[in-house]
Amino acid sequence: TANKKLLILPGDGIGPEVMREVRRLIDWMAHRRRVSFDVQDGLVGGAALDATGSPCPDGTVEKARAADAVLFGSVGGPKWDALPFEQRPELGILRLRKDLGLFANLRPAVVLDPLVNASSLKPDLVRGLDVMIVRESTGGIYFGEPRGIETGPDGKRRGVDTEVYTEDEIARVARVAFDLARSRRNHVTSVEKANVMQSGRLWRAVVSEVGKAEYPDVELQHMYADNCAMQLCARPKQFDVILGSNLFGDLLSDLAAALTGSIGMLPSATLGAVGPDGRRNALYEPVHGSAPDIAGKGVANPLAQVLSFAMLLRWSFGMEEDAKLIEDAIGRVLAGGMRTADIMQPGMARVGTGVMGEALLRE
Amino acid sequence: TANKKLLILPGDGIGPEVMREVRRLIDWMAHRRRVSFDVQDGLVGGAALDATGSPCPDGTVEKARAADAVLFGSVGGPKWDALPFEQRPELGILRLRKDLGLFANLRPAVVLDPLVNASSLKPDLVRGLDVMIVRESTGGIYFGEPRGIETGPDGKRRGVDTEVYTEDEIARVARVAFDLARSRRNHVTSVEKANVMQSGRLWRAVVSEVGKAEYPDVELQHMYADNCAMQLCARPKQFDVILGSNLFGDLLSDLAAALTGSIGMLPSATLGAVGPDGRRNALYEPVHGSAPDIAGKGVANPLAQVLSFAMLLRWSFGMEEDAKLIEDAIGRVLAGGMRTADIMQPGMARVGTGVMGEALLRE
Ligand SMILES: CC(C)[C@H](C(=O)O)[C@@H](O)C(=O)O
Ligand SMILES: CC(C)[C@H](C(=O)O)[C@@H](O)C(=O)O
Repeated sequence: TANKKLLILPGDGIGPEVMREVRRLIDWMAHRRRVSFDVQDGLVGGAALDATGSPCPDGTVEKARAADAVLFGSVGGPKWDALPFEQRPELGILRLRKDLGLFANLRPAVVLDPLVNASSLKPDLVRGLDVMIVRESTGGIYFGEPRGIETGPDGKRRGVDTEVYTEDEIARVARVAFDLARSRRNHVTSVEKANVMQSGRLWRAVVSEVGKAEYPDVELQHMYADNCAMQLCARPKQFDVILGSNLFGDLLSDLAAALTGSIGMLPSATLGAVGPDGRRNALYEPVHGSAPDIAGKGVANPLAQVLSFAMLLRWSFGMEEDAKLIEDAIGRVLAGGMRTADIMQPGMARVGTGVMGEALLRE
Repeated sequence: TANKKLLILPGDGIGPEVMREVRRLIDWMAHRRRVSFDVQDGLVGGAALDATGSPCPDGTVEKARAADAVLFGSVGGPKWDALPFEQRPELGILRLRKDLGLFANLRPAVVLDPLVNASSLKPDLVRGLDVMIVRESTGGIYFGEPRGIETGPDGKRRGVDTEVYTEDEIARVARVAFDLARSRRNHVTSVEKANVMQSGRLWRAVVSEVGKAEYPDVELQHMYADNCAMQLCARPKQFDVILGSNLFGDLLSDLAAALTGSIGMLPSATLGAVGPDGRRNALYEPVHGSAPDIAGKGVANPLAQVLSFAMLLRWSFGMEEDAKLIEDAIGRVLAGGMRTADIMQPGMARVGTGVMGEALLRE
């Protein structure tokens, strides 16, 4: 196959160690399936900060632009917690999303059968759960201006952020959600606080318009964000695709991930617009963070990172067969009773990062 | 006892019918415990809109100011869903919070023993749960300016909201949370997105300062809002008091309520500043909404409204004994197996609003 360009950004905490298992998989693929990629490495987050003084150096952004897809680990850790805002490791991922125009963050919350009992919810409520959260990821309160902390004439501080959405920003991410719904169960729940927020009113109006004009076949439901948080907890299986702003999508996708009970298993994709050449920028990363508390101990679950790689193969490299191969291998490893600490259950075999990775290669 | 002034605002949907059970309780108290209040009635929400053209008429605000406490039902319903923003029933409660300076919204999420199985979470995770959410309720993105939907020169719409907090607004609600923690388990979790929001950075800084200077004995933890949503779902019992902005508090308190599985049981209080005379404005309301789908059917659970009244007696009228009497009666009614539809469990006796209210009086 052609030499697809893959940029690997391991980042901080458990990022590098779970990424190691992906590299072993890539090596295995080169030997056993004769597929090879043009793999580059880059710095991001705290690692980049330490090496270059910036959490997202220009060099990394350039490499990311040139790549066909980016595989991202995770960023952040106590070492950089006291730094000023402009130097936080998190700016690494924020800048990549913004500069590459990665406006649609797709986060599946899926419960695999062998892991039903890992959920904090009763098994019947989550068995077979398969929800996709589509989160807008280059707009809203994450980037709106004005923003800042100012000190008034009275010497008092005031913190300001601006939530702003244009109708085009809303429409393009809504289309991603509607398209996905068509390949799933044909249902979109659009989430906002139209009862108190003006951007929420516009959000609701534009999603309705796009739905009516372009996706009359997809069922569209509107829900307030607070109610959605409730419903996710009470009856998660009512949802198919959930669409929300950067901020609501952040909270609700983490909540959805938590209720699967196996966040160490969840991949995500962040996609840009499809260009005239049919190419689209894309970044893949686990839903979990850098987990500094367990970093370096060899106990982290590598499966979310591996599944992110499988997603990348499917969506960016068109390698459905290889993606499926990896996902099936994971299913078999879990069915065989192997568990990392985060998804450990009575009667299963507890293993570390490396053993899990090896088991995967064997399958 | 002295003639305390109580304003009753039933509002819409199930509001009037659950409020009826409180009125029966008030009548009972007058006869059997020789306590009487100066009870007034007022219009709010859709009911006020239909009668006066405003969801919160000036008359209602004046009565609320004059009262020692307000007992609020719930507002909203499909009938008013298509109205322009300025006429939404929700403005009823928003204006009351703002005009009365009710800046601290207290929402307990408590799991009573007989209702452990109503939760969607596994019983062990919620048995004995007792979390208090303190939500800022007169500031943030709910009220910040500029806000609105504007159409640019290109004919495209743009929706804008402003999240703004001053240090004084943050400090005063933080004090409410710290004070509450002292009477509980001495632990406050302050929630924001300081990693992406400037108001969140200020929030974290000010809460730290107040904690250090005035409450060094209370343990303070900071947590990102997305992580808090996760943790609430995964291990809710780790929390004592959770403190958040208007928006985060809205989502997280609804989530916390949902995980108790008995939102029809949860009261809330919204408090203003303590005046020089020791008085403080206060409004009490159930956490649940107006539930238009079951309104008028006589099946709504009146207990959240009754518990809101008990909270009012305790906090605004200093009637601890009467509050306890009501809460204990509720405990006994539930232990006896009576359930409204929302908390129905196999083997229990399903009853309507009125029967539940009568059982309460008997106890
Ligand atoms: C790392 C951080 C900036 C971030 C966010 O809030 O977007 C994280 O929670 C995420 O969802 O990727
Ligand atoms: C009714 C509405 C404006 C409201 C809010 O968002 O504050 C509701 O969800 C609440 O929490 O009381």
